[in-house]
Amino acid sequence: MLELFLVGIGTGNPDHLTREAEHAIRGADLVLLPHKEGDKAELAQVRLALLEQLAVGDERIAHFDMPQRRQQGDDYGRQVDEWHDAIAQRWQASLATHLPSGSGRVALLVWGDPALYDSTLRIAARLGLAPQQVRVVPGITSLQVLCSAHGIALNDIGAPFLVTTGRQLREQGWPAGVDTLVVMLDGQRSYEQVSEPDAEIFWGAYLGMPQQLLLHGRLADVAAEISARRAEARQAHGWIMDIYLLRRPGMSA
Amino acid sequence: MLELFLVGIGTGNPDHLTREAEHAIRGADLVLLPHKEGDKAELAQVRLALLEQLAVGDERIAHFDMPQRRQQGDDYGRQVDEWHDAIAQRWQASLATHLPSGSGRVALLVWGDPALYDSTLRIAARLGLAPQQVRVVPGITSLQVLCSAHGIALNDIGAPFLVTTGRQLREQGWPAGVDTLVVMLDGQRSYEQVSEPDAEIFWGAYLGMPQQLLLHGRLADVAAEISARRAEARQAHGWIMDIYLLRRPGMSA
Repeated sequence: MLELFLVGIGTGNPDHLTREAEHAIRGADLVLLPHKEGDKAELAQVRLALLEQLAVGDERIAHFDMPQRRQQGDDYGRQVDEWHDAIAQRWQASLATHLPSGSGRVALLVWGDPALYDSTLRIAARLGLAPQQVRVVPGITSLQVLCSAHGIALNDIGAPFLVTTGRQLREQGWPAGVDTLVVMLDGQRSYEQVSEPDAEIFWGAYLGMPQQLLLHGRLADVAAEISARRAEARQAHGWIMDIYLLRRPGMSA
Repeated sequence: MLELFLVGIGTGNPDHLTREAEHAIRGADLVLLPHKEGDKAELAQVRLALLEQLAVGDERIAHFDMPQRRQQGDDYGRQVDEWHDAIAQRWQASLATHLPSGSGRVALLVWGDPALYDSTLRIAARLGLAPQQVRVVPGITSLQVLCSAHGIALNDIGAPFLVTTGRQLREQGWPAGVDTLVVMLDGQRSYEQVSEPDAEIFWGAYLGMPQQLLLHGRLADVAAEISARRAEARQAHGWIMDIYLLRRPGMSA
């Protein structure tokens, strides 16, 4: 039987690894390791160092190239669908080559947690496996590392919070009835468009990594500084991953 | 110098522990272990077993009794404030007894993650420590274990989700603009009051523990079954902790 382990590995700090994740990776017959064109060398290195540390030798690693997502057209949903189909085909080709018996334990390393803004579960669903053949191992998310690094709680006492994307924030604005927003996947500095100058922002980039950056303050006071630091860091590293929490005034952190 | 580590330990499965959490607990000079009146023996046992496994002997554990929260009056916010003050005083008394030098590393074990519906950070803020003296170690939350156990993603592609409480759900209803809700701290079966019969519910109790329960289906079809299983399990174990995710129809899991 084929067993697929989708393993959340945290945000790049090997100390985020849970025991469950460690067991799943150590026990894998095969680790599928995708490579993107223009892949961030630092991130690729973090995964390889982790595998080395867990004694997963090269003979158990199946490297494969990620397909490109078609960028033309405005049918974003269909583009993503086709892209996930293509990735699933790469997985299957890789499995056919490296696990010809069709049986064994296969691990995929996922940044953060496979449940949070990640497509691995949707790609896995295309393999036609039974539910018990797909195992999800939760991992520490950037959301949690953001709060930990700033020493804040996600929610005020008994209050809700919304996790959303930069695009949603730009298009929908700050929704009514919720005073805490966590914004992920924002490549376009959407916080600059929030018309709540007194909101607090807690920003973090490269969370959990040695190059981690943190800024915090009143949105109107620090937005420009965040944008400047963001641009500098992106230039210096060639890539950036960041996240932020916004809280309406009057809420205690 | 006193250093306080607020350590997320996951939901009761020792394999949720991260390396960071393990280091923080193993390296602690003192572990503060609160006991509640009517404490769930199973939960207390999980923590003690974890400490034993990490070679934290009784000489490094400071047991203390949690104060009671005043229940009279409708000033809920003030009740909570007073209660947190009282807990902070117990911590300080415990520290004065067990760490008279006022210096050392102190760990507090927190279910889930200290950032998510937990008061430990707010209590710690009452000790007047400098920010660098308080360290938060993220842990796997019930939210993540719920998704992992059901094999689902938290969000649909690019879509937001709201994390809220049973009380908020009852009082505010299902907010506009968000199709996925995660409901925590619901002792009152608030899902029964949701007027979206076609919504899907993914429910879990005792997540990560041997007695874990899962149910999933169309809300109108399974709400009664969840309530029945919930009541049975609560009766059998003497306590229950549960959480659920609601998704409006048309959203892919």
